[in-house]
Amino acid sequence: MLTRSHIDTVVQAALDEDAPWGDLTSETLIPADAVATAELRAREAGVFSGGEVFAAAFALTDPSIAVRLHAADGDVFIAGDVLATVAGPARGVLTAERIGLNFTQRMSGIASLTAAYVAAAGGTAARIADTRKTTPGLRRFERHAVRSGGGHNHRFSLSDAVMAKDNHLAVLVAQHGSITAALQAARAALPHTAHLEVEIDRLDQLDAVLAAGTGPRGVGTIMLDNFSIDDLRTGVECIAGRTIVEASGGVTLESVPAIAATGVDVISVGALTHSARALDLGLDVRLDA
Amino acid sequence: MLTRSHIDTVVQAALDEDAPWGDLTSETLIPADAVATAELRAREAGVFSGGEVFAAAFALTDPSIAVRLHAADGDVFIAGDVLATVAGPARGVLTAERIGLNFTQRMSGIASLTAAYVAAAGGTAARIADTRKTTPGLRRFERHAVRSGGGHNHRFSLSDAVMAKDNHLAVLVAQHGSITAALQAARAALPHTAHLEVEIDRLDQLDAVLAAGTGPRGVGTIMLDNFSIDDLRTGVECIAGRTIVEASGGVTLESVPAIAATGVDVISVGALTHSARALDLGLDVRLDA
Amino acid sequence: MLTRSHIDTVVQAALDEDAPWGDLTSETLIPADAVATAELRAREAGVFSGGEVFAAAFALTDPSIAVRLHAADGDVFIAGDVLATVAGPARGVLTAERIGLNFTQRMSGIASLTAAYVAAAGGTAARIADTRKTTPGLRRFERHAVRSGGGHNHRFSLSDAVMAKDNHLAVLVAQHGSITAALQAARAALPHTAHLEVEIDRLDQLDAVLAAGTGPRGVGTIMLDNFSIDDLRTGVECIAGRTIVEASGGVTLESVPAIAATGVDVISVGALTHSARALDLGLDVRLDA
Amino acid sequence: MLTRSHIDTVVQAALDEDAPWGDLTSETLIPADAVATAELRAREAGVFSGGEVFAAAFALTDPSIAVRLHAADGDVFIAGDVLATVAGPARGVLTAERIGLNFTQRMSGIASLTAAYVAAAGGTAARIADTRKTTPGLRRFERHAVRSGGGHNHRFSLSDAVMAKDNHLAVLVAQHGSITAALQAARAALPHTAHLEVEIDRLDQLDAVLAAGTGPRGVGTIMLDNFSIDDLRTGVECIAGRTIVEASGGVTLESVPAIAATGVDVISVGALTHSARALDLGLDVRLDA
Amino acid sequence: MLTRSHIDTVVQAALDEDAPWGDLTSETLIPADAVATAELRAREAGVFSGGEVFAAAFALTDPSIAVRLHAADGDVFIAGDVLATVAGPARGVLTAERIGLNFTQRMSGIASLTAAYVAAAGGTAARIADTRKTTPGLRRFERHAVRSGGGHNHRFSLSDAVMAKDNHLAVLVAQHGSITAALQAARAALPHTAHLEVEIDRLDQLDAVLAAGTGPRGVGTIMLDNFSIDDLRTGVECIAGRTIVEASGGVTLESVPAIAATGVDVISVGALTHSARALDLGLDVRLDA
Amino acid sequence: MLTRSHIDTVVQAALDEDAPWGDLTSETLIPADAVATAELRAREAGVFSGGEVFAAAFALTDPSIAVRLHAADGDVFIAGDVLATVAGPARGVLTAERIGLNFTQRMSGIASLTAAYVAAAGGTAARIADTRKTTPGLRRFERHAVRSGGGHNHRFSLSDAVMAKDNHLAVLVAQHGSITAALQAARAALPHTAHLEVEIDRLDQLDAVLAAGTGPRGVGTIMLDNFSIDDLRTGVECIAGRTIVEASGGVTLESVPAIAATGVDVISVGALTHSARALDLGLDVRLDA
Repeated sequence: MLTRSHIDTVVQAALDEDAPWGDLTSETLIPADAVATAELRAREAGVFSGGEVFAAAFALTDPSIAVRLHAADGDVFIAGDVLATVAGPARGVLTAERIGLNFTQRMSGIASLTAAYVAAAGGTAARIADTRKTTPGLRRFERHAVRSGGGHNHRFSLSDAVMAKDNHLAVLVAQHGSITAALQAARAALPHTAHLEVEIDRLDQLDAVLAAGTGPRGVGTIMLDNFSIDDLRTGVECIAGRTIVEASGGVTLESVPAIAATGVDVISVGALTHSARALDLGLDVRLDA
Repeated sequence: MLTRSHIDTVVQAALDEDAPWGDLTSETLIPADAVATAELRAREAGVFSGGEVFAAAFALTDPSIAVRLHAADGDVFIAGDVLATVAGPARGVLTAERIGLNFTQRMSGIASLTAAYVAAAGGTAARIADTRKTTPGLRRFERHAVRSGGGHNHRFSLSDAVMAKDNHLAVLVAQHGSITAALQAARAALPHTAHLEVEIDRLDQLDAVLAAGTGPRGVGTIMLDNFSIDDLRTGVECIAGRTIVEASGGVTLESVPAIAATGVDVISVGALTHSARALDLGLDVRLDA
Repeated sequence: MLTRSHIDTVVQAALDEDAPWGDLTSETLIPADAVATAELRAREAGVFSGGEVFAAAFALTDPSIAVRLHAADGDVFIAGDVLATVAGPARGVLTAERIGLNFTQRMSGIASLTAAYVAAAGGTAARIADTRKTTPGLRRFERHAVRSGGGHNHRFSLSDAVMAKDNHLAVLVAQHGSITAALQAARAALPHTAHLEVEIDRLDQLDAVLAAGTGPRGVGTIMLDNFSIDDLRTGVECIAGRTIVEASGGVTLESVPAIAATGVDVISVGALTHSARALDLGLDVRLDA
Repeated sequence: MLTRSHIDTVVQAALDEDAPWGDLTSETLIPADAVATAELRAREAGVFSGGEVFAAAFALTDPSIAVRLHAADGDVFIAGDVLATVAGPARGVLTAERIGLNFTQRMSGIASLTAAYVAAAGGTAARIADTRKTTPGLRRFERHAVRSGGGHNHRFSLSDAVMAKDNHLAVLVAQHGSITAALQAARAALPHTAHLEVEIDRLDQLDAVLAAGTGPRGVGTIMLDNFSIDDLRTGVECIAGRTIVEASGGVTLESVPAIAATGVDVISVGALTHSARALDLGLDVRLDA
Repeated sequence: MLTRSHIDTVVQAALDEDAPWGDLTSETLIPADAVATAELRAREAGVFSGGEVFAAAFALTDPSIAVRLHAADGDVFIAGDVLATVAGPARGVLTAERIGLNFTQRMSGIASLTAAYVAAAGGTAARIADTRKTTPGLRRFERHAVRSGGGHNHRFSLSDAVMAKDNHLAVLVAQHGSITAALQAARAALPHTAHLEVEIDRLDQLDAVLAAGTGPRGVGTIMLDNFSIDDLRTGVECIAGRTIVEASGGVTLESVPAIAATGVDVISVGALTHSARALDLGLDVRLDA
Repeated sequence: MLTRSHIDTVVQAALDEDAPWGDLTSETLIPADAVATAELRAREAGVFSGGEVFAAAFALTDPSIAVRLHAADGDVFIAGDVLATVAGPARGVLTAERIGLNFTQRMSGIASLTAAYVAAAGGTAARIADTRKTTPGLRRFERHAVRSGGGHNHRFSLSDAVMAKDNHLAVLVAQHGSITAALQAARAALPHTAHLEVEIDRLDQLDAVLAAGTGPRGVGTIMLDNFSIDDLRTGVECIAGRTIVEASGGVTLESVPAIAATGVDVISVGALTHSARALDLGLDVRLDA
């Protein structure tokens, strides 16, 4: 879902932000005809993501720079692995270095954290999903990185699926008299391709939601927000496969195995994107004057 | 250094990314005349940043939403503090909520981490500075957050100061015969307002750099990269105030006090922006149908 | 789903297209202090759409022009009705007139055509839906106009729901051995909020699709493309409510009643947006020098 | 007058509108290495327009897709004719299909309708011209399509020629005492390259207009708006070649021959662009997995 | 022909260019609550232009800054005159100062130079016109400045009028056999509102051009390029009012009176925009801390 | 410091400004298959600048046009020299001609004027520097042209260095009690890479400025504004190399030698960019039909 046009737009903006009127250092210190080769090397283990984005940073700076990727997005690596080689005019290589790294370090950080969550849910059917807690401007990149790590994407935006939360339900009940009637009214108003997900905070809200009907003509997913492990298990049993079941709220690497074991279909984790640490990747540059 | 025009541009882009063709949920479930009030509440302690950005998310969504900030950027808060109140049409409040939070959580996370570093350097003259390892597209926001946390900014971009690193020096020596001659040639070519910073990896490189002259007509800052505490101390002594001295490389909260005690002027920390965790702030919304 | 920010962007672009360096006529012939009042008047009956867009054309040209809408989007009107009044500096009123009309004539044309289709399906549960056959650049406006006419929106874009057509199915069968296995593989790869719609051309494809499962964990909608009325009826019976059923292909105002009577849930009509005629609305301007 | 830069900008925007974060269907269901060939086939007779635009939709989606046009813009075709072939990666072919068709169907629809009007005026010197009643954002494309159909373009925008209508004249008379004096004042203020066209509603306005002078130093075109055939004929006689004569207002295919026979130079027809029906062109895709 | 939307776009871009990440000086040295008043004062005599543009520089920087213009565009002033007063937050006043001046100094420089040319042609009917030799990106501003100085605008762009030069004529003759036939063919292909101007280098080309017909159905303007005064006079006589006559080529303030006296209608002067000197205007700022 | 991405953006905007909907003349008069060769020829002596920009005007109009530069930016030429040759489709060559010339004439004009100033300062160590008095939108181009002429760039923008002027100092004194304390406070707040330049109007302000400290921890440059030659000389002596010394204010070609002889390091000249005359370069085009 990363398109060339989108990558180029975002990476060019980042390059412009980092060098609004050129790279004073390279242009002053490096001869125009100097050539460099560089290796993108992992300084810790992880899962790779952002190869194409990394390459774009160099190509947009100077089309004569060649980038060869040695790892595909989603590949696991260890410290010391060379993930890509870069070769071409030294000025451009040095100018693009930081931006190329900024993107791939962040994306590989997200991929690696996602992979850890996926591993923690291993052996169950639960999928690890991201949220809308992404970096402004980089949602497509970060969603891609989650997939690189073996995770799944949640709705992309406010426009492509419905998520009815406690506040919405409160308003709806006031209007329609019951959650059940309210959800049926909502369903009637929505495009038939729009997925209807309902978030509940307590088990006793479950029956009213299910009574609105399930499947494409009703509720598609029920999110159990901040439920205890026991309540999650009870929720899964009550729902009995009629909707997708999503667990959410304060999920950590430590709590994932137990949550996954309750039988939920989806575990959504905001930390995948809002608190992933940049992975330590470095560019070893060698210049020939 | 955050201008209204820049805030509006970046926040509008984030809103568009999050709702490319509207907010299906609010528009379907919430009556157009419903009104909401909301409180931005801290769920953990920290340093606030991004108040204006938070407010812009709501104002750009619906100009009739009123946001009152109860904390200024840079203010310290504890869990439970109400940092802002939001009031207006419920649809807009719910639509803008996530984007408002995404920005201020990230910025307050950076401010809080910066404040921790600043505290760790407390009692010394060393300033904590950021780097170019910022989130693509958000550099101005993140630089502002560093200042909110009591940190200082490094050069903004490749365009506004020179940083000569090992690779540059190697090329220069090949061209000019010596680091000293090379730096003097660079100085002659640079705008007189451009700061010249030189990064060295080993103490024995110091004399050649200093020999190029210091001050506005020479080298302005010497960065001691990945130096031991002892070597830092020796470096500071040798330089003897002729240039600013910057320590860099793998700085952690644990290592900051010892580094700061060596007498360096600046400690630059990439982690401030590339690995800060989003602070836990929440919006408690109350709707009136 | 029409936001102020989107309306302003599209309308400003249209104004710029229509007057790249000003309105030679108004600026030459009309005194700067001349004032005009104008009425947007229907010259034929129809359904109104685009009121806010019409108003934006004037407001963006000159913020001191006041526009009062006398009809809401979705209102039915007859020839002679005054739908809006415009008052303010004559230059701006005359400059914006054509662009304001171009938008609202097109949108009201779509709304009116949609309303005719909706009426033709009257008394059944079938909803009339649009398609992706919209005017490039104006999809949100045209989707809004369809809703003004009582129609429903289909998926907005390629990004927010899946539509598997004959070509896709052929490829999938080659890969997975059967449509059933193919659709199950697709479902496993998709975000849980993504609606999966499958288009079939013949009744005998139906069983394999249904065998992939239905509901949020399977197929959400089956589109019966270019089916006879008899085959539509048979299809509806076979599906028996397990998925939404959509009829598509060469639908006309004449064929809608029979199609709707078959019990399908959705009838999608490309002509709503790709072949609607602009409605005849005029602006009667009265100038005071 | 269609430039590559303009085509690419508009088509890229349309692709982004149709797939803001990728094509979920192609990316999920079609293998990355699948290849497709496709034929753009006419499903009804008409005049072709938009070949370059059609090709751009594919090239911008994936530069490795090859498009060969078998018809030039302006060529006449019959149902069944293959107008272009497309070959390349299947994902991109399927992603771009709808946008490519949306443009060329609309443009060929306009070209075909224009050709019908041109034919109806056949045997006379009257040219068929478009108006400013174009689709916002697509004026250059639609003007090109009118030329493909053998029509002529009117002024492009408010900026490049003057059109004085009844409202303008009323104001001018109030200011200058007479239409004649008013038009002379206008002429003195206008760039010497600006064409001055005056619209009149009644024959008795003609003398005052002509008295202002004609040719490059006076009035260039007189538009006879909503005139009867008899009045048109009288108008042409009175003007006697001193200005261009344009007929306008409610022109239909049926009324064109009689209007053209009156000797007018130009017949302008808003319906060419505001009410043309999309022509039925289809893309027959064949996939190899 | 300067619109608010255009002014704001160009001025905002200039402000962004001049302060990509804020005004380091104002933000560091000036307290946020300091207030300034400033006077835009002429340091030499001239003709004012760009008042609205000057005001926009401040309004876009800080909407709370008030700008009062004491001169209208086109007003003549002498050294010492106060042309505008500015009052508001000191930071914004100082940030916007340079950009506001850059625009109005340039525009007033053009207006003043134009006024000198207009005066030099005084007492004749010849108008002074600009050319396409404008500053890239600032054509609308510079064209406005020419009008402020009493000059007239030529065609705005390549899109709105035809200018056939020697190269074009050579090609046309090769194709059509004669200039006369060539120009008639061109006229038939052009929109009826497009002005056809023909440039000739020698008197002996004149008959062939005139033979193509004149007025709205033929040639509208003949440009006599680099003609001697005698040849200009002969040209004017031969043309005898049938077309507009334009003199062009190396026109100076010294040569204008004689050229104007030949009876030409238009004298076009590239220097008005490509070589005008910025007028000396200064901003006298007074700060209150 | 001119990057391909920036050149393309600015030149494309200029082309769009000059031909918003195509080149009516070329498209009407020149056959699509006509080919042209053209020479960029100097009509007066000067220093070349803008070769890449000139080439981009043609490449962006039609990528099949080939441009060969015969002079590098900074090369000196005499009248009659051929600076570049252009070859390719005639339509594109003629369409791009004016825009290519507009840029390179302006840039070569700046380069040539700069070279004159540099020559006037010849034999001294003083460098000629530009200012922020550049054409809005073209700062990077004009700064490049100054370098082509042998000049140096001053700070690029308000964001990359500090310039404290009289107004700032007045405020600071009010706040901090003395200029010395004020500058020290400013220094403490600024990024360590930000150059601090202080402008003084009178010699008696010098001591207070110097007392604030010099070098990277203090004041970097002192600008002596509108000083007499004697005062400049005294200033240089007092400063004694502790800071860079800049002379500014009403510098002319005539006054440069004496100013340079005083020993100042930098002479800044606003006229380089705000009042340079476009150099006379022409394009001699030869067409083959």
